[in-house]
Amino acid sequence: MNQNEILRAKNPLVHCITNYVTVNDVANSILAVGGSPIMADDESEVAEISSIANSLVINIGTLNSRTIKSMEIAGRIANSRNIPVILDPVGAGVSKLRNQTVENLLRNIKFAAIRGNLSEIGFCAGKNSSARGVDTNEEKNLESMEVASIVAKKFNCIAIITGAEDVVTDGKNFAFIQNGVSEMRKITGTGCMLSGILGAYIGASENHFDSSVSAVASMGIAGEISAENCRGTGSLHIGIIDALSQINDDTISKRGKIRYEKN
Amino acid sequence: MNQNEILRAKNPLVHCITNYVTVNDVANSILAVGGSPIMADDESEVAEISSIANSLVINIGTLNSRTIKSMEIAGRIANSRNIPVILDPVGAGVSKLRNQTVENLLRNIKFAAIRGNLSEIGFCAGKNSSARGVDTNEEKNLESMEVASIVAKKFNCIAIITGAEDVVTDGKNFAFIQNGVSEMRKITGTGCMLSGILGAYIGASENHFDSSVSAVASMGIAGEISAENCRGTGSLHIGIIDALSQINDDTISKRGKIRYEKN
Amino acid sequence: MNQNEILRAKNPLVHCITNYVTVNDVANSILAVGGSPIMADDESEVAEISSIANSLVINIGTLNSRTIKSMEIAGRIANSRNIPVILDPVGAGVSKLRNQTVENLLRNIKFAAIRGNLSEIGFCAGKNSSARGVDTNEEKNLESMEVASIVAKKFNCIAIITGAEDVVTDGKNFAFIQNGVSEMRKITGTGCMLSGILGAYIGASENHFDSSVSAVASMGIAGEISAENCRGTGSLHIGIIDALSQINDDTISKRGKIRYEKN
Repeated sequence: MNQNEILRAKNPLVHCITNYVTVNDVANSILAVGGSPIMADDESEVAEISSIANSLVINIGTLNSRTIKSMEIAGRIANSRNIPVILDPVGAGVSKLRNQTVENLLRNIKFAAIRGNLSEIGFCAGKNSSARGVDTNEEKNLESMEVASIVAKKFNCIAIITGAEDVVTDGKNFAFIQNGVSEMRKITGTGCMLSGILGAYIGASENHFDSSVSAVASMGIAGEISAENCRGTGSLHIGIIDALSQINDDTISKRGKIRYEKN
Repeated sequence: MNQNEILRAKNPLVHCITNYVTVNDVANSILAVGGSPIMADDESEVAEISSIANSLVINIGTLNSRTIKSMEIAGRIANSRNIPVILDPVGAGVSKLRNQTVENLLRNIKFAAIRGNLSEIGFCAGKNSSARGVDTNEEKNLESMEVASIVAKKFNCIAIITGAEDVVTDGKNFAFIQNGVSEMRKITGTGCMLSGILGAYIGASENHFDSSVSAVASMGIAGEISAENCRGTGSLHIGIIDALSQINDDTISKRGKIRYEKN
Repeated sequence: MNQNEILRAKNPLVHCITNYVTVNDVANSILAVGGSPIMADDESEVAEISSIANSLVINIGTLNSRTIKSMEIAGRIANSRNIPVILDPVGAGVSKLRNQTVENLLRNIKFAAIRGNLSEIGFCAGKNSSARGVDTNEEKNLESMEVASIVAKKFNCIAIITGAEDVVTDGKNFAFIQNGVSEMRKITGTGCMLSGILGAYIGASENHFDSSVSAVASMGIAGEISAENCRGTGSLHIGIIDALSQINDDTISKRGKIRYEKN
């Protein structure tokens, strides 16, 4: 696995339609790992932007009627060009608008990867969720494995559930990643940042499973490295970007706590 | 006063309709003090979001026709559910759009707390202001006390004016807080962050006066702690979030420069 | 040249209609160098905001139909009041929406300064560009000089092209600035931040050429100072704001690598 080397060599252009809460962190994370972000969400230009991009990231964090339309347009173009599309269904299960948007996107767009916490991916799997806001759910790892598997098979994609232990699966192969520190939940946007760098990793590599595992491990390891030096959640946040900008495959293979399973 | 302990124990969900300039800092501040932020501003979902929240923060910093409607919808739901609503009338007095929006919100929504600088709260009090932009006004503390008192009585709420000395009042009880450093005015968003953590403190406690005092002192103390170690306004900014994430009632009672008065 | 002293003394109010990716950094940069930012983009208030400002910065980074209208309204008011308007044509050349917006703005608004990378300013000059996203172009300095000269003469403004070597020109006088470090390209928003502080420098001084040179040098020097202490791109980013908040004319004259030429 030299997914980070591939990424830094290819410098993929990642088109992001994302929320305004964490957009700066998403852009800086993509730059840090070796990609080039381009944020554009007006319906009259998203087709052109997706037409020059290497991947598309759709994050519904602060969706609105204007941007929902743009997500669909960009997604169709990306599909027609066969570039990977990543979905971050932030808050799926929390409002009808989010639920309908996610259902429509899943119906009309082919996703290469879908990433969220257990309740969000549970929604995509068609499971009832007891989601409260957009916090990371801490239900059991077994449930994550099952839910991720359903989503991966149903949508023929990489499904990624982040939590105390992260799960990455294509429906057959599973990777369980135990990097990261619990303090990361006290920062907004670590999930969005991960979805952004998934766009960079997957946009640079044919091997979507391996590149997803590298992206997830990168984020967790960056959190650990930052936590060693931080003085609170402000510097933890900035230190994650620092660490992402220094990460390479060597660090990932040395520090990665990754366990593989086959189904 | 153990308001921070109450807050960290209750972990209130704070629905924010806020500006895109400082939204990331607002979310991270709320997380730092022990709340859970949820940012959502589309009119078709704000009612549902406010329906699961413990408080609502309305900040008009970058208001537009779309979000103004959402503020009203969310405010009514919050009122019907009896959860506290906090208003940050950013730039009130500066444009007709802001003035009309604030007037409409004050007419239609019951606020638990209103926070701003002297000219913004002066506008809410019906006073002519000579506001120039959204900078902190440095008029006299006496005027702040008078203006805050008018607003607290008129709207039956906690009125908070931040400045060189901060004033918190319910119309009868006054707290004057002298924490903070002047360099904080060189960072955008310290006011917005305070309004965000007010949403967390007030959302967690029945005692809105005490929780407001704790929120205001938290912000000032965080600024002082950060200023001891910073190398400019960038690290001052990050250090404030660091300090907020470490703050507890002990720090507040040790470092708080709070003077109480009764009317 | 004591442009920073003038700026800190005058504390100009800078109205920004800018993108939501880097808006926080733009506001904090303007504050750091001595200005007061005010972000407002609703069409029903931008005229009033520009009416009290000392300069207007228009950045099309995340333009949409709503904000494009606001840019034109604000620009006309600023022109009628004779306050300087700065254009940052982010991504010009990349989509029809951006191209048409830039063409309309250049037709209808008189700009005091236009800043971008070589491909963006090349678009303003009427040159075909092979732009790929919004990354800094690294074509030759000679081409930058030629393109900047065309734009400065065509629009009777200061043209600024940032790259490995930055060019500032009024069409006759040229300044070439070699401050900055290449790692700055791994942070989103250094260009936007520079356009923001250009609004502050130019809004405070009659001498638009000298104030532009000081702004460009400030940004590059801040990058160098920050790079001496950073641990990656996260702390590089924050350190730039730190350094901007400490910068003065003495630092600029000691560390500035500025070469002048006349045409």
